[in-house]
Amino acid sequence: MSFLDRIAECNAHDLSRFRPFIVAATRVGWVRHALADRLARFGDVLDVTLEAVTLDRALDDFAARSAAIDRIVRALADDGIVTGVREEAYPVKTGFTHPPLLTMERAAIPHFGVRAYGVHMNGYLRRRDGLHMWVARRAFDKPTYPGMLDNMVAGGQPIGLGLLENLVKECEEEAGIPPALARQAIAVGAITYCMEAEDGLKPDVQFCYDLELPDGFTPVNRDGEIAEFHLWPIDRVARVVRDTREFKFNCNLAIIDFLVRHGLIAPDDPDYLDIVQGLRR
Amino acid sequence: MSFLDRIAECNAHDLSRFRPFIVAATRVGWVRHALADRLARFGDVLDVTLEAVTLDRALDDFAARSAAIDRIVRALADDGIVTGVREEAYPVKTGFTHPPLLTMERAAIPHFGVRAYGVHMNGYLRRRDGLHMWVARRAFDKPTYPGMLDNMVAGGQPIGLGLLENLVKECEEEAGIPPALARQAIAVGAITYCMEAEDGLKPDVQFCYDLELPDGFTPVNRDGEIAEFHLWPIDRVARVVRDTREFKFNCNLAIIDFLVRHGLIAPDDPDYLDIVQGLRR
Repeated sequence: MSFLDRIAECNAHDLSRFRPFIVAATRVGWVRHALADRLARFGDVLDVTLEAVTLDRALDDFAARSAAIDRIVRALADDGIVTGVREEAYPVKTGFTHPPLLTMERAAIPHFGVRAYGVHMNGYLRRRDGLHMWVARRAFDKPTYPGMLDNMVAGGQPIGLGLLENLVKECEEEAGIPPALARQAIAVGAITYCMEAEDGLKPDVQFCYDLELPDGFTPVNRDGEIAEFHLWPIDRVARVVRDTREFKFNCNLAIIDFLVRHGLIAPDDPDYLDIVQGLRR
Repeated sequence: MSFLDRIAECNAHDLSRFRPFIVAATRVGWVRHALADRLARFGDVLDVTLEAVTLDRALDDFAARSAAIDRIVRALADDGIVTGVREEAYPVKTGFTHPPLLTMERAAIPHFGVRAYGVHMNGYLRRRDGLHMWVARRAFDKPTYPGMLDNMVAGGQPIGLGLLENLVKECEEEAGIPPALARQAIAVGAITYCMEAEDGLKPDVQFCYDLELPDGFTPVNRDGEIAEFHLWPIDRVARVVRDTREFKFNCNLAIIDFLVRHGLIAPDDPDYLDIVQGLRR
C-alpha cells in the first residue's frame, strides 16, 4: 500500500449519488437521493426536486433557518436516520470566514453534505535519533471510529469558537496539554478532501498544527475520548499510515502532510507530487 | 494587494492561445499558435495541424528526438525567437520521475510549454525577535529577471542531476553555503503553477526547501548571478511579497508557502484556504 491509497480513500465519492442542498441561493451541501426523497415530507420548509433540495427562501435569517433545519434533524434522529446526536452546533456557511447561514447538529452535517472544519495537531519531539510523534487511540466507546488511531489532538470546529481557542480547549481536554504550551502550536496549513461515507458526504477542511513537545511531557486524557497515547518513532508512524488503515481516515492526511513538511517523504519519490497535490483537493 | 494577487499572477494563462505539443503520443507541452505556424517549415520532423504540433513518431528514441528538436531550437535562436540560449539541457518528460523523452535547451522550454522543475530554498534564522530570512537580489546582467529579488538559493533542474545534488551545487555557487550545511536543508513540499509569459507557457513545479542557518553565517555569491544578499525580519519579507512585485514571480510562491508552514499567515485569514490551495494547481 502507499500514502496515495490513504489520500484516495479520503477522496472516494460519486457526486451523481447526491443532489445539491441549497440555502440562500447558494449550494452549501449535497444530499443523497434516498434522503432527499425522505425530506419531501418537510415540504413546508424544503423544496425537494430531482435537481436539488432547497431551504425555503422565506426563511431569511439565521434563527429561522436553524430552527427549521433543527426540526428536520430531530425527526430524522427519531427515525434512526441521523444517529449519535451530540448536541454540538456546527455552522453552515459558504466559506470558513463567512457568516453562518444557519447552525446544524454535528451528527447531521454529513447527511446534508455540509463542509465541516476541524483542527488536527501533531505533537512531536526532536530526539537525537530523529523525530518521534505522539499518537492517540480513540476510546472504544466513542460513537465514531472507536478504537482507531488518531492525531494527538483533533476536534471538529463548532460554531462560535476561534480555531486557536478550539485547539487550546481540545489540547487540555484530550491530552492535558496546558494552555501556555498549547499556544505554542504552529499553524502549518490546511488539508481538503471529500469522502463519501455511510452517513453522507464529508467535503471537509482540516486546519493543521504542529506542536513540538518537551521530552518530559506525557499526555493525559481528561474527557474520556482517548483510550491511550503512544510515543512512536516517526518511521513507525509513517509505516502504519502507509501500510494499514489503523488511523481514522482523515488523521492519515494530517500525518502525511507532516511527513512532507518535515522532509520525511523524499521529493524524488515517484508519488511525491501526487501526494502533495492530493492533500489539497 | 494581497498574497492571492501574487498567486494569481503566477497562474494567469489562456490555453486557447496554445495548441498541444505531442511527443510519443503524449502531450508534453503547449505551443503558441503563432509559433506553431512558424514550426510548419520543419515538416520533416514535425506534424503541425490546427489541433497540435506533433514530433514525428518515427523518431523513437531519446537521441533522435533530442537532435531533431535541437536543430529546430538553433534555427529559432537564429531567427531571434528563442533568446538567451544558455547551453543548459532540460529534460522533457511526462512526469518528474519518468525517463526523459528528449532533452531541450533551457531557453526553449517555455516556447514549447514544457514543464520545468526547479529547487527553491528559503534560508532563515531563528532569533529572539522572530524569524529572519535571507533574500537575494539577482545580478543586473542576468538574462532573465535582472535585479529582481529572489529566494536565497534557487535553480532550474537540469537533466541528469538529483534534486538534492542540484540544491547543494546551487547553494555553493549562489551563496557560498558549504555542502555539509546545505545538506541540512529540509524538503518541505512542492508548488505548482502555470504562467503565460512573453516567451510562452510555464506550467512549472518548484521543489521547496527550508534551511535554518547559524546566526554567524553570511552568504557570498560565487557565480556572479546574485548582486547582493539581505537578511530581513520575516515581516518585511512578507510585506514586500504581499504589496510589491519586487520578487521574481515564482519566488513569491516559495515565500508564501514558507509563511503558511511557519504559522505566519493566520488560518483565520479570509484568504487562507485560497492561498493554501492556490500554491498547488
